[in-house]
This record gives sequence, C-alpha cells and structure tokens, in this order.
Amino acid sequence: MTFVGPENAEQARLLRLLRDDGPRSRVELGDALGLSRARLTAEVDRLAAQGLVETAGPAASRGGRRSSLLRVAAQVRFAGVAIGPAEVDVALTDGELTVLARRREPVGPRLGPEATIARTLELLGKVRAELGLGRLSGVGVGLPAPVSFRDGVPVSPPALPGWHGFGVRDVLAAELGCPVLVDNDANVMALGEQHAGTGRAFDDFLYLKLGTAIGCGMVLGGTLHRGATSGAGGIAHLRLGEGDGDGPLCGCGESGCLEAYCGDDALVREAMAAAEAGRSPALAARVAEAGGLTVADVARATTAGDPAAQALVRGAARQVAHVLVGLVNFVNPGIVIIGGTAPGVGPTMLAEIRSVVYRRSPPLATGSLPIVLSDLGDRAGVVGAARLASDHVFAAP
Amino acid sequence: MTFVGPENAEQARLLRLLRDDGPRSRVELGDALGLSRARLTAEVDRLAAQGLVETAGPAASRGGRRSSLLRVAAQVRFAGVAIGPAEVDVALTDGELTVLARRREPVGPRLGPEATIARTLELLGKVRAELGLGRLSGVGVGLPAPVSFRDGVPVSPPALPGWHGFGVRDVLAAELGCPVLVDNDANVMALGEQHAGTGRAFDDFLYLKLGTAIGCGMVLGGTLHRGATSGAGGIAHLRLGEGDGDGPLCGCGESGCLEAYCGDDALVREAMAAAEAGRSPALAARVAEAGGLTVADVARATTAGDPAAQALVRGAARQVAHVLVGLVNFVNPGIVIIGGTAPGVGPTMLAEIRSVVYRRSPPLATGSLPIVLSDLGDRAGVVGAARLASDHVFAAP
Repeated sequence: MTFVGPENAEQARLLRLLRDDGPRSRVELGDALGLSRARLTAEVDRLAAQGLVETAGPAASRGGRRSSLLRVAAQVRFAGVAIGPAEVDVALTDGELTVLARRREPVGPRLGPEATIARTLELLGKVRAELGLGRLSGVGVGLPAPVSFRDGVPVSPPALPGWHGFGVRDVLAAELGCPVLVDNDANVMALGEQHAGTGRAFDDFLYLKLGTAIGCGMVLGGTLHRGATSGAGGIAHLRLGEGDGDGPLCGCGESGCLEAYCGDDALVREAMAAAEAGRSPALAARVAEAGGLTVADVARATTAGDPAAQALVRGAARQVAHVLVGLVNFVNPGIVIIGGTAPGVGPTMLAEIRSVVYRRSPPLATGSLPIVLSDLGDRAGVVGAARLASDHVFAAP
Repeated sequence: MTFVGPENAEQARLLRLLRDDGPRSRVELGDALGLSRARLTAEVDRLAAQGLVETAGPAASRGGRRSSLLRVAAQVRFAGVAIGPAEVDVALTDGELTVLARRREPVGPRLGPEATIARTLELLGKVRAELGLGRLSGVGVGLPAPVSFRDGVPVSPPALPGWHGFGVRDVLAAELGCPVLVDNDANVMALGEQHAGTGRAFDDFLYLKLGTAIGCGMVLGGTLHRGATSGAGGIAHLRLGEGDGDGPLCGCGESGCLEAYCGDDALVREAMAAAEAGRSPALAARVAEAGGLTVADVARATTAGDPAAQALVRGAARQVAHVLVGLVNFVNPGIVIIGGTAPGVGPTMLAEIRSVVYRRSPPLATGSLPIVLSDLGDRAGVVGAARLASDHVFAAP
C-alpha cells in the first residue's frame, strides 16, 4: 500500500491543526498558519486530492460570500491500542481522534506476546467490522514496558516476561499494512492528556501513571521527551532503600523499587498484612469472603473510610511524593497530572502527594504548580495511542 | 541604537551555523541549509549589507572557479559575564564565541547588586578598551541564583541577599545599549558545554554544577530546558532529610538541603570537624597555620591522599549521586557532565558518583551513559553567557 501523508511542513501543520482544533474555514487556516490565500488553496487542493482533507459544511459568515469549513477527511481513521498487564483496550478514532468504537478484553498478564498480539488483531478486526472500515491510516500501541521507540520493541520489561525484543511494531504493521508506532504506556497516556485532557493547556507537564505499573510521561515545550535511549520517565525501579536488599521485593527481582512500595500489588500486599494482623476488620471480612484481596477491594475500603486502608494508601502515596518532589524541582512543569489509580484510591493519594510536594519543595518550582487527577479517565491510553499514530502520519516528510 | 539581526528563519540558521561550525563556503552553506544557490546568495547579501556576515578568505577548491569562505563579521562581538558568589568573570568573544579578552575580579558575596553590576560594567569597559571595541552585539549574564528568564531578574536567591527582583537585565541594557540576557549559572554553563565542550556531541545532556552553589542545566532535544517558571534544574534545596529539621543547616534557612550536604561550604565544615576531632593531622596543621580552612585546602588534602578528606568528599558525592540517580532515570540523558568543583576534588567525586549511579540504576537509563568531568574548566560560564546572548541575537524575528 502506498503511504499517504503530507508532502511538506505546511501540509503537516495544517493537518495537525484540523486534528487538534476541529473544522476550520480557509480564512482561519490561512491566519493560523501564516500562509497566503493562494498558497493555502494550493496546499488544501493537494491534501484534498490525496484524500486527507475535505469540506465539512458552511462556515459562519463574516459577511460577503459564505465560505465552507475544511476538516480531516472522513476516510482518515486511526486505531489506538492500550495493552495493559491485564487487558487489551482497542479504539478506532476519526481524524480528530474522537473515539468511534472501542472494545476491551481481559488478558492474562503472562499470556505472552504472540497470543496477546493475536487478540489485539481480533479486537481491531471487530471494531473495524463494526464501522464497516476497510483501511486504517495508522495504529499506535502503548505497552506497560520500557520500549525502544526507534525499533518498536519492548526492552527487558520486568512485568512482561517473554516480550523482550518482540517486534510488536513490525508484526502489527505486516498484518495491518499501515504505519504502526509503539511506545511506553505512560508516554502514550501523556499524549492522550496533551490531546484531550488537562494537558492540552500546558506546554510543559508531567503525567504520573500510578496503578499496576508506574511510569511518568513528560511533555516539554509541547513535545513528548523520550530521552537518549527512550528510557525517560522510568521511575518504577528507582530504589528507595539505602542499601542493597532494603525494602519490599519487586517484580523486577530487586528490592526497594518505587513500584514495590506503591504499585497496586504493593497496596494489595499491605492490605493483606493489615487484614491478617487484625488492623482492618473490613479487609479481613473481605478476605474471608473472597479468599483474597484485589486493588478494587482496597479502593472500596479506602472510600468507605477504613483507617487501615487509608493509612496504607497514604503511605504508598508518600513514597511516590518523595520521588515527585525531585522531579518537579528538576523539570519545573506547568502542571502534574496523575492517572492510572484504581477508582477510589486517587483522591486519597492526591491529597497525600500534594501535602508532601508542597511542604518539601522550594517555592519557585511549586508555588503555582497544580497537581490534579486526570479527567480523561481510562481513555488516556487509547486516545494517546491514536495521537501517537497521527503524529507520525501527519508529520512532514 | 537600531537592533541588527536576522530578518528571517533562514538567515538565523545561517548565522548559527557560522557561529557553531566556523567559516564555510557558499556551497557548504547551501547544502547544510537546503537552500538554492539563488536564495542563499540573496540571504547572504542581506546579511552582509547588515554587517553580520563577511568574506573570510578563499575556500579549498573543488575544481573549477575558487570560491570564498563566509564567516560571522568581525564587528559582531559578544560579552559573557559570569557572576559568582566570590568573583565577577567577564569575557569578550567574536561571533564564533572564541574568547578574545577576559578579566576576572574577586567580589565579596554580600557586595549587593548595585555595586556588583557597577564592577561588572567597569570590567566590561576594560576589556572593550583592550580590544578598542566600541559596540557590543549582545551580552549574556549568568547568576548563582534562580532567575526569571523572561524578566531578567533573580528570584529569592538564597545565596545573594538583596538581589531579589533586581533588574540585572534592564540596568545593564540601559548602560550598554545592546540586548542583555540573564539566566541561572548552571543553565549558562550548560550552554557553554553545548557550544564548546563535551555537550557539543549530544542532543540530550545534563550539566551538573557542583561547587559553592549547586545546580543543574539540562539540554533536551538540542534546546536548554528552563521549565514553566524558569526553575528547572533547581536541585540545590531539595531536602534529603526525612523530617523537618533533619540534616545540616543550609544557607537558605532550611535544613537538610542537598547543597548543605555537598556544597563547598559543607566540605569546609566537615573538614573543620575532622581537623578538630583529630581525624586529619594534615587538615589540623593547616588550621593551625592559616586559622581556618578553604575548599582549596580540602582539595589539596584530598589530592594528597588524606583519608579523612577523601572520606568527606566521597560522602558529599554520595548525596549528589542519590539525587542524580533519579534525574538520569527520569530524563535519560545521553551524557552527564560535571563541573564547578574545586580543582582536585572532581576526580574523587566523579568516582563515587559513578559508583552509586551505575549500581543503583536499572540498565536502560544508564547502561550506555557516560558520566564525565567538564573539559571546559572555568570557561564554561563566560562562553555559555556569550552563547546565551548570541542565541537571542541570532534568532529569527
């Protein structure tokens, strides 16, 4: 299949503008891009001939002849794929990254890459069939793993044994016949926030992803920062203990990693300990009933005001906060957006994180720094993955 | 005075190329900038007419007619000013930021802004007279303080009482009649490394400034990252202690700040303690001789192999290293460059920092990460300040 995309920097900017801001008149586009009327017409004509831009309907009149709105063409369709430790989440979007159809399915965390990618392709087939869609313009994929962005493969992922070096990008691209981009899940969710969340209004922000796997995406100067070996934001396995072997055992095999203190598994482990030690009758009752605990149980107990549950969630948040103090002083972001927590846990964590960060930081970095929970909820992953794909497809050659 | 600078993005790129890479032929410039011969000639003619570019001499022949080299015009002259806690350092450079003349003078750390700026103007006058130079194209200034880059003023600087909000930029610009840019010293030194040091080869690097005042400049994607309120890199007053009041008292009034553990003042304090406790006969002898210690004494004792001096330098380095572990995992730079240490202290600090960072980091971020001492030495400040000025003067309008 021939790749269709912008032919120059102006066409790329025009497509991104229509993607981010929706349908616009030719006058508005010319003003926003600083292009003459003749040049704009020429570029729009080329994009229309390629099937990337189309007329949407009449624009509001400024007096005189009525002009029509332009938009990203209806045949431009992206897919966003968020592969989590326990779920595959797939969405189809239009050229403005509005979700048109979505399917989610639980997968075992140890299913392995071949089977997980096969399930992903099945789900993509279902949503495409739902919309009667033949062709995809591009697919973005977020993985709960360090990812070599250049190669499109996970790199030594502690939570995904068997995935190291698996060619996620190339396997999907060969099956789907369109560009496929693969990135770390926190990076992808930061892109989702940049497109459709609170991050939209900020050039510099941190997206702190809590939950099962912990990570941080950072948008600096309007661009996702991936680092020299696309390892930026890798905070999960920072070791908080002073000596080797200090702190709880982590899924990565080391001890005392941040994730081992405050990932979902740590919350469940601490909750079990509280139940067994008789510190929480509510959690003990749940263990007796269900034979064990999940993070949803911890969240329910926290929301219900169980003191032991609240204490362990706050304790986990304090560990996150100590790391975050360093990050916000170092990066000086415009806002910190927190996502990925189990529903019910977020507000308690947020309160504790704010308390520590504001108390322990010099004023220049945090004096006017908002720290908020994501308002995108669980859409950040798929929208961000679609954005990842569109950034590539709508890039200048 | 009318401001002279590039009229468009191509002229700006051309000037920066000649600044960074030195004299170039028209053919090389056209290739590097992707400009047609006609377009290049037109832009070069405009820059020459403005006195920004001139002919340098014959280029090596590619066969056929010999062409001439172009360079930044000789009348383009920048000044770099590095104001330290104990010194004002002033240099004049040509358009390639080569230092042509330099003067340094000790100033008391508490001299206050008016007197310090007056001394700076005197020194600038002397180096200009030395070179018979009338006009400056731009002046950059580095301050050992948090700086509002937009406003050109220091913000609540713990080490510079009386400087808060002082209009360093506007006062100097009014006196000198040219653009003046003011930034934090670690940022300025990072720009120096980017122009003339090891940082030249890296798009993403951290410049860790130790010494009296501690800071970190970060170049990401080839651009200095200043953050939302130009507070990025502010690590000096991260509090390492767990509780309020833990750790040594810091010059900022708080306790347990990174700088209070490993700034030069901390080294001297610990060295005095070692001398008084009888742990270092060498340091005790120096106290008896000189009535006190300076960081140069600590450095000499460290170089001479005094175990107590080496131990306290390594202890300070470990505190820096624990912060650096977080930074490198978070930012994933291509290299870490360390500068600002007293001569003699650097190698011992470097060894300890490397040991901690490599041992405590997951491999993706640090597997191929060099950590090196700056090879620019004490020129980083003035060269970086000249670069700061030139970045502004050579920017597209």
